[in-house]
Amino acid sequence: MASETVRRIETTATNVHKTILKQNKPSLRFPMRSLSNVKYDPKRGHFEMRGRHKVRTLTVSTVKTFAQTLRMMALSKELVEHEDIATKREAYYVSKNWEEARFLEQPESDAVMDDVEALFEVNREQLGFVPEEKGGEVSGKLVIVDRDSETKKPLRIDCTKFGSGAYSIPISVEHLKFETDARFILVIETAGMFQRLVKHKYWKSANCVLVSMGGVPTRACRRFIRRLADARQIPVYVFVDGDPYGISNIYRTLKVGSGNAAHLNEYFCVPQARYLGITPQDIVDYKLPTHPLKDVDVKRATDAIKNDPFFQHHKEWVRAVEQLLKMGVRAEQQALAKWGLNYVIEKYLPEKLAHPQRFLP
Amino acid sequence: MASETVRRIETTATNVHKTILKQNKPSLRFPMRSLSNVKYDPKRGHFEMRGRHKVRTLTVSTVKTFAQTLRMMALSKELVEHEDIATKREAYYVSKNWEEARFLEQPESDAVMDDVEALFEVNREQLGFVPEEKGGEVSGKLVIVDRDSETKKPLRIDCTKFGSGAYSIPISVEHLKFETDARFILVIETAGMFQRLVKHKYWKSANCVLVSMGGVPTRACRRFIRRLADARQIPVYVFVDGDPYGISNIYRTLKVGSGNAAHLNEYFCVPQARYLGITPQDIVDYKLPTHPLKDVDVKRATDAIKNDPFFQHHKEWVRAVEQLLKMGVRAEQQALAKWGLNYVIEKYLPEKLAHPQRFLP
Repeated sequence: MASETVRRIETTATNVHKTILKQNKPSLRFPMRSLSNVKYDPKRGHFEMRGRHKVRTLTVSTVKTFAQTLRMMALSKELVEHEDIATKREAYYVSKNWEEARFLEQPESDAVMDDVEALFEVNREQLGFVPEEKGGEVSGKLVIVDRDSETKKPLRIDCTKFGSGAYSIPISVEHLKFETDARFILVIETAGMFQRLVKHKYWKSANCVLVSMGGVPTRACRRFIRRLADARQIPVYVFVDGDPYGISNIYRTLKVGSGNAAHLNEYFCVPQARYLGITPQDIVDYKLPTHPLKDVDVKRATDAIKNDPFFQHHKEWVRAVEQLLKMGVRAEQQALAKWGLNYVIEKYLPEKLAHPQRFLP
Repeated sequence: MASETVRRIETTATNVHKTILKQNKPSLRFPMRSLSNVKYDPKRGHFEMRGRHKVRTLTVSTVKTFAQTLRMMALSKELVEHEDIATKREAYYVSKNWEEARFLEQPESDAVMDDVEALFEVNREQLGFVPEEKGGEVSGKLVIVDRDSETKKPLRIDCTKFGSGAYSIPISVEHLKFETDARFILVIETAGMFQRLVKHKYWKSANCVLVSMGGVPTRACRRFIRRLADARQIPVYVFVDGDPYGISNIYRTLKVGSGNAAHLNEYFCVPQARYLGITPQDIVDYKLPTHPLKDVDVKRATDAIKNDPFFQHHKEWVRAVEQLLKMGVRAEQQALAKWGLNYVIEKYLPEKLAHPQRFLP
């Protein structure tokens, strides 16, 4: 994998070099990164690019960006070869030593990094670039196999042995391997609900892996769930608040990705994800305490069924979102506590998990 | 500890009950929770309350809040006795079954919980109430001793064995024990810098424990550092961005607490914390790339030296903040990457750690 990335960087750089030696103008070809270049393919399960490209040719006006792109490629090659990493911000600061090619502001260097990522059609992590922020905790029936960075020996991390704590997902997860016989992965929106399920060892009775997203999942968290689900062929059930934010922002992003980073969804989406709850029908069936939908909720829900290719493709989702809009209310996953703090463990989850075929797609 | 909390709840409730039986009006006495009731005692090392109280007597107009306070005390007693936990939001939803005493909005229930917390002069976690959000990762020379919630047997968690991952601090840390011979705890602002130090096993060469705050530390993260530092008598060095936010919001909050939760600072502050960097002088000495101070930075820095009892008490801090204001710039911890991605490991940290007595207080 690493050597493949290095090979592709070298090929591209060699082509540029040869073109220059022939006294021709070198160029680089990037996929367009915009919403208009996106389609939803339910078979592949994520937003995909429609295939439009832009070409950057070396001219007087592009010379600085062109040089910066080559410098960024060189930095990536160095990172991959030395098994090191750099955050977007670090890469920006490294450029301060590139003299004329240095970036003045971080958004410039981020854009060039996005270009390089799209150019090689890999995700940033494979180029040695990692996001600033972490996120995602794991507990339950899973052994993660990492390796010692010095000795290169495997390190087996048993996620049943963390007590009230948890395993914190690293910024880059490409190198991790997994051992598990869990029946499913339960992905949870809030840290509070995760802590309850950990505290009562829910993963043991349900034979599952618990993952806490803590809101909208980070790239590392999405990639971790995807790699684990792929590697072990286990279903992914998502337990979020029953509101437009939980449905449209958190669940949709986890499952199919997002519009403005479509060249990455192939790596970061989790097409096997299914929506366990809270559903609009759960609010009725479980007589949950609710809050009225705010204007922003109504707008988000309306946008989802009007403009979002994912929801539009699934009639069940259109019906569910319409039901929520008609009811005019939302319910948080903690609302189950009305019936007792551990009602979620004793009643709600077992009842739902008895019929996974009923989960929203 | 748990039985002590239950005993105090029972004593208070019994007094209320006895007063009612005598046909008198019962009352509860709470410390005032406001900035005007705060002082800084450098010997004790945290903001403290000045001792003003408010008394809530049972009358027609206070009857609902009075009943809610007693209900909240009963919920706490139940949680502690069953070793269970409830988030603030869950406690709010539990009240939906309290009929006339139910809360209409969560801020009401949060306020009553804060009252109960202040009433017993313990932190919320000791009452079984836990915050919504998690935060804080640990890696390095530390064994955390938790216990299995079923078997009650000790669980030893070795923080040198996580590879690129880390230990995620649970929402409540009161029950944890620690084994370590580390020389110091290095507390880091950004997840990116933490990941670099973990990746290169900095904790091994420096013989330390690494803790990532990921911005302003959560209650659990602050309490974890405090308990670890107290239990093992190890110094705490804080490595944050060289800007008013890193100094005044992150470092100050970690070390002495905050004004609007002064009744908690006794538990959540880390008085032994010292400021490793980035200092204003580091910006000069290490020729770091900078950004100009924004208006909000200038306001924050000016507030710190004009109004904050902690900074006012320490002349070194007043001088440092004045120097930053005069320079008119700020520098992030990643700015060290200008001199190479691992300059921080090879040069900056060893040079600073050679003279801990020079760290800002």
